[in-house]
Amino acid sequence: MKNYIKQDEWAVIEEGFHPEFNEVTESLMSLGNGRMGQRGNFEEKYSGKTLQGNYIAGVWFPDKTRVGWWKNGYPNYFAKVINATNWIGLDIEIDEVELDLAQCEILQFMRVLDMKAGTLKRLCTLRMANGHELEIESERFCSMSHDEAGMINYSIRPLNFVGKLKLTSYLDGDVSNRDANHGEKFWEEIDKEVLGSEAYLCMKTKVSPWENVPRFTITSGMRMKFFQEDKPISPSSLPVKHDKYVACQYELPLVTEEKTIIQKFVVNLSSENHAVDQQLAYAKKYLNEIYHLGFEVLLGEHKDAWAKKWELNDIVISGDVAAQQGIRFNIFHLQQTYTGEDPRLNIGPKGFTGEKYGGVTYWDTEAYCLPFYLATAEQKVARNLLEYRYKHLQKAIENAGLLGFDSGAALYPMVTMNGEECHNEWEITFEEIHRNGAIAYAIYDYTRYTGDESYLLGHGLEVLIGISRFWSQRVNWSEAKQKFVMLGVTGPNEYENNVNNNWYTNTIAQWTLRYTLAGIEKAKTDTETWEALKRKLQFREEEETGRWAQIVAEIHLPEDKEKGVFLQQDGFLDKELLTVDQIPEHRPINQKWSWDRILRSCFIKQADVLQGLYFFEEDYSLEQLQRNFDFYEPMTVHESSLSPCVHTILACKLKRVDQAYDLYVRTARLDLDDYNNDTEDGLHITAMAGAWMAVVKGFGGMRIQDGSLSFDPVLPESWKSYSFRVGFRGLVKEVKVSKEGVEIKDLKR
Amino acid sequence: MKNYIKQDEWAVIEEGFHPEFNEVTESLMSLGNGRMGQRGNFEEKYSGKTLQGNYIAGVWFPDKTRVGWWKNGYPNYFAKVINATNWIGLDIEIDEVELDLAQCEILQFMRVLDMKAGTLKRLCTLRMANGHELEIESERFCSMSHDEAGMINYSIRPLNFVGKLKLTSYLDGDVSNRDANHGEKFWEEIDKEVLGSEAYLCMKTKVSPWENVPRFTITSGMRMKFFQEDKPISPSSLPVKHDKYVACQYELPLVTEEKTIIQKFVVNLSSENHAVDQQLAYAKKYLNEIYHLGFEVLLGEHKDAWAKKWELNDIVISGDVAAQQGIRFNIFHLQQTYTGEDPRLNIGPKGFTGEKYGGVTYWDTEAYCLPFYLATAEQKVARNLLEYRYKHLQKAIENAGLLGFDSGAALYPMVTMNGEECHNEWEITFEEIHRNGAIAYAIYDYTRYTGDESYLLGHGLEVLIGISRFWSQRVNWSEAKQKFVMLGVTGPNEYENNVNNNWYTNTIAQWTLRYTLAGIEKAKTDTETWEALKRKLQFREEEETGRWAQIVAEIHLPEDKEKGVFLQQDGFLDKELLTVDQIPEHRPINQKWSWDRILRSCFIKQADVLQGLYFFEEDYSLEQLQRNFDFYEPMTVHESSLSPCVHTILACKLKRVDQAYDLYVRTARLDLDDYNNDTEDGLHITAMAGAWMAVVKGFGGMRIQDGSLSFDPVLPESWKSYSFRVGFRGLVKEVKVSKEGVEIKDLKR
Repeated sequence: MKNYIKQDEWAVIEEGFHPEFNEVTESLMSLGNGRMGQRGNFEEKYSGKTLQGNYIAGVWFPDKTRVGWWKNGYPNYFAKVINATNWIGLDIEIDEVELDLAQCEILQFMRVLDMKAGTLKRLCTLRMANGHELEIESERFCSMSHDEAGMINYSIRPLNFVGKLKLTSYLDGDVSNRDANHGEKFWEEIDKEVLGSEAYLCMKTKVSPWENVPRFTITSGMRMKFFQEDKPISPSSLPVKHDKYVACQYELPLVTEEKTIIQKFVVNLSSENHAVDQQLAYAKKYLNEIYHLGFEVLLGEHKDAWAKKWELNDIVISGDVAAQQGIRFNIFHLQQTYTGEDPRLNIGPKGFTGEKYGGVTYWDTEAYCLPFYLATAEQKVARNLLEYRYKHLQKAIENAGLLGFDSGAALYPMVTMNGEECHNEWEITFEEIHRNGAIAYAIYDYTRYTGDESYLLGHGLEVLIGISRFWSQRVNWSEAKQKFVMLGVTGPNEYENNVNNNWYTNTIAQWTLRYTLAGIEKAKTDTETWEALKRKLQFREEEETGRWAQIVAEIHLPEDKEKGVFLQQDGFLDKELLTVDQIPEHRPINQKWSWDRILRSCFIKQADVLQGLYFFEEDYSLEQLQRNFDFYEPMTVHESSLSPCVHTILACKLKRVDQAYDLYVRTARLDLDDYNNDTEDGLHITAMAGAWMAVVKGFGGMRIQDGSLSFDPVLPESWKSYSFRVGFRGLVKEVKVSKEGVEIKDLKR
Repeated sequence: MKNYIKQDEWAVIEEGFHPEFNEVTESLMSLGNGRMGQRGNFEEKYSGKTLQGNYIAGVWFPDKTRVGWWKNGYPNYFAKVINATNWIGLDIEIDEVELDLAQCEILQFMRVLDMKAGTLKRLCTLRMANGHELEIESERFCSMSHDEAGMINYSIRPLNFVGKLKLTSYLDGDVSNRDANHGEKFWEEIDKEVLGSEAYLCMKTKVSPWENVPRFTITSGMRMKFFQEDKPISPSSLPVKHDKYVACQYELPLVTEEKTIIQKFVVNLSSENHAVDQQLAYAKKYLNEIYHLGFEVLLGEHKDAWAKKWELNDIVISGDVAAQQGIRFNIFHLQQTYTGEDPRLNIGPKGFTGEKYGGVTYWDTEAYCLPFYLATAEQKVARNLLEYRYKHLQKAIENAGLLGFDSGAALYPMVTMNGEECHNEWEITFEEIHRNGAIAYAIYDYTRYTGDESYLLGHGLEVLIGISRFWSQRVNWSEAKQKFVMLGVTGPNEYENNVNNNWYTNTIAQWTLRYTLAGIEKAKTDTETWEALKRKLQFREEEETGRWAQIVAEIHLPEDKEKGVFLQQDGFLDKELLTVDQIPEHRPINQKWSWDRILRSCFIKQADVLQGLYFFEEDYSLEQLQRNFDFYEPMTVHESSLSPCVHTILACKLKRVDQAYDLYVRTARLDLDDYNNDTEDGLHITAMAGAWMAVVKGFGGMRIQDGSLSFDPVLPESWKSYSFRVGFRGLVKEVKVSKEGVEIKDLKR
């Protein structure tokens, strides 16, 4: 756990430079606008520890799978979010000495992520090796109003010298991914152009061995503007071109105490949105437009857009700056990562903050992120997330086919970009199939929240039938148990692999079948549409629904009646049952224990039985919840970022507010405090939605009951009050909870 | 299954060239002498499909581990058997056209592995692109009498031309492993020298990132001899030197119908046996000696050595050439791979026939190979195999330490070269722990066979205590079962992973504890030695033996009393129980099914419960064997080369001779017929010992009872007779089984 970020209600502040944590800070201070984003890298050269990252939404490369031992069924490649053209770069040379923060004496340093404005600012005073002292100030943002554009305002002020500045402002497409499986670079150059103070670079992802994989073309353009003594100047520009690189070079005089302001206007256009042959022309037009609007106007529009987002989405906590900063940090990054405007996109686990994992879509989207977007964005945003899976249904059917399933059974991938699986650990890829259930559950969650049954009765039912067909084939009849069983799965608790009858998986499978059967009953009221769907899906109604009903009735759900708990899986009680507080020196076990030891231990990575009790709470009594919570929570190490939030919600339900608070802090400040020592790889974006849920569904106790929102709030001891707003069926509800009581208001949306 | 190898009692014959199977043939026709070996590659350049392989026993490189997802506890490297200097190479150019069999018209072709003589011969008539027709004859061997030397006798006879031969005889150290994890080359050049018709190349394995890994230096030397018209000639030699390469080049006239004979004498000296600074001088001396002995004398000595081996080890089967060829092929390769003279060596799964898998020591050595060497070699050979593990005991204790065990618990690695684990699949590396039991069992097997208790009471007991300590820590008490359980293991049947209470593993663990307790009782008769050992091992006698006895008494051994079978693991009866003949179109399942489907199916890769019933047959009735055999055998797909042999032995015991015969053929001709379509990677050397066991313990019914050998032979329908010899406590027993009866004779050893 790190503690160098200054606590502030609206900002993430690094005061004094911490080069040892620079990659962590770069992750924390990432910017994005749903369309593009980049890490908090410095504009100028930096020879210290840094992970360069510039990402364009939806742009990926099929990185050839790397495994030790191939298993039949592994995908050939991992769809990897790739580092794209570096557009922030400004190389600075003063009197022939290169500016490199790692080679300077830093006299003063502050890096600030302004979450209200959506900007990254830096103020830095330094002494170069030649004794020159100068002040650098920079501010940049990825525009929320012009979402293919980014701007930098960068100033240099000499403090003790008169000298000559050589500035190279560049676009560099010769970038790589640190986590490339085979050290490969993914881009090739297509075109470039330098014209006065403008430069363009067009890069295309390389040919891969897989025919059906799309290639992406990105045209980046930049245009420069300068001011000295607050007056625009037009220094002459020297064009520079290398392989995969364009730049404009300038020489400018620097005068003591006078600011030279360098403004860089950038556009990044993707072939996902612009025909390749029109990218260059459009880039020029777009750049021209933003150039003439100017930095201040664009910044104003950008701030306005953020203000609008905060208007609906802010959570205000008073009396606890750490908690306040934490929740805003989470909301901020969620909003930057996914705006919901483009139905082809989804919410990557690292968003625009790192390159690890690859893929963008995990079950996190349905289980954790959907409730956030349901409550904080227009209804179509949540619906887009559902439609995304509908579009991948055919691929999910093919994916199930690879594993030997047929007749339209669908298994959604564990990780995907284009609907194809791109994960390669057999115990997860092939066995962590509960993800299929979360995709079904999201249809229910959306329908329940919005009251809109049109998705369920249209595309949703097709998805549900595909998933139900999978469950139906995935179980088998056990002669020994005289029950349907599901063998060889990995539940949400990934610290168990290849177990039999994971309670959560069996429960969500049973639930899916039941929900699908109910959906079919609803659909049948429109005979014509239903008959058409049956024909489309070759649905053998009687036979299939008959078997499903039988499975619903006779699936094995492991339980210990004496202890009154559900069993995470068959045989769970054969383990040595310890509690987390008995092994303090062994934690985190994923760093200290070998995999077999983790597997045979009782310790739980993330909510598993409890995840089920959270999803299906109406089906269980408070007493059942309490017994299971008391049994499993003490064995849970929360080494998944997705774990504490579910526990927070359940602890609130059990009115264990102190425990809920501890779990909440862990969720909300996971990255700010770098709890798991891995923030340098990027932020845990999807877990951030969990932090939001911990407040709204946990402390706020928000539920849907009979088509209405209900609240059952609790207030942590250390908070004076908290408030949040949620959109619900055309209304905005504002909930304020304080020691004095609870106030719920309807606002207009 | 391939069928291009001609059946012959003493030879493996490829008649007519089969370039599409060339890598398979190269594997089949590998030569070795326990000290070095190489695949059946052509001497001259070949641009077609080929896997070059020259290996020196005990020489390896730590190839950096490659995995998709790192698990804590994985070893850093895989000890890989590496391809060493190519010493057979003869580049041939005739009238400026290079001889390349892939570019010639092959008029006649025969490649023969003479198993009686231990030589590889080739006779080939071909037409080159320029119309030249010629005959090539070659013969080579790795000398059994001079085990650091190899010789080639190669002749060229022009059939329709007079021309000029340019010959380049070389040593090439610039070789690589096809299966290198990161495409790396493993050798660097240390020294080289070319002197007239002699050349020397000294190569050293590269520096690796791991400090304690030894580096190996190999000096290869060659010396050339020529004959034309049966007379020695001394053509002048042009020296050639490149990086990692030395050669002698010659120009010789070729006259129609006249043979030019090229003899290459080679030595390969390893730093394992020769100080590096003396290698070159010794190589010169050694080469001089064999050069002057000459090819014919060396060949004679070599044949004599083989005759001696066959004298004791041959198995004669009459009436079934396929079976005869199969068993001799297996015995031949076992003898080439491991002679038992060097206690540092062991029996690699591919021997000198390929580079796949790496490591050299699996549990195959103890479970399959030891009985072969016990019966066919001097007692010290088997004892060396035991001592090998004793020498690795400290490493096994460290290995267990990495997985969280302490107090001297030892877990032998799944695969090793130097005692360190070098496998990296968690389900095997960490969980396939039954291997530990096989190492204990081998001590029993040796002691029982030889009557020699000195190993048991000396080093053996230390090994047993280390292994027992492991089992003792690896089980835990199940409150639910009121039994000791062993969770999260992989049994011999690798088509199950991370199961609980694998019957075989629990049984062999229980047996080990019992055998160790008995060993301790014996050891205690020599109080002084025992007390010293206790001190050395910090053995808390009462506490440790007390717990062991408790585990022996109360370990859970899953069983279905109704069916009267032992259960392969907990929950086995929850599976859909099918038989192999119900899924003909799905086989082999390891190529047609995804891993999860294999795991949740009932299908068995190799004997698991039956392996236990084979090891501990005295503890079970014939009826128990029969019930378990009838239950498990129909579910067994035998996709491990180690499976059919155990089933053959058990089928013989049950007097199901036809079934035993079918299983035997599959074992004995596994590589000759390329059953599993993977012989191109190398031969299944350790499984070959299983084929031997199938005859001797299976058909021959050999057992040890009360210190004597007993036989209970059966005769397969299609065999007229069979006979074998086994060494036993200073005697040689000859067993002849025919339709007329059984004849058992004692011969002098």
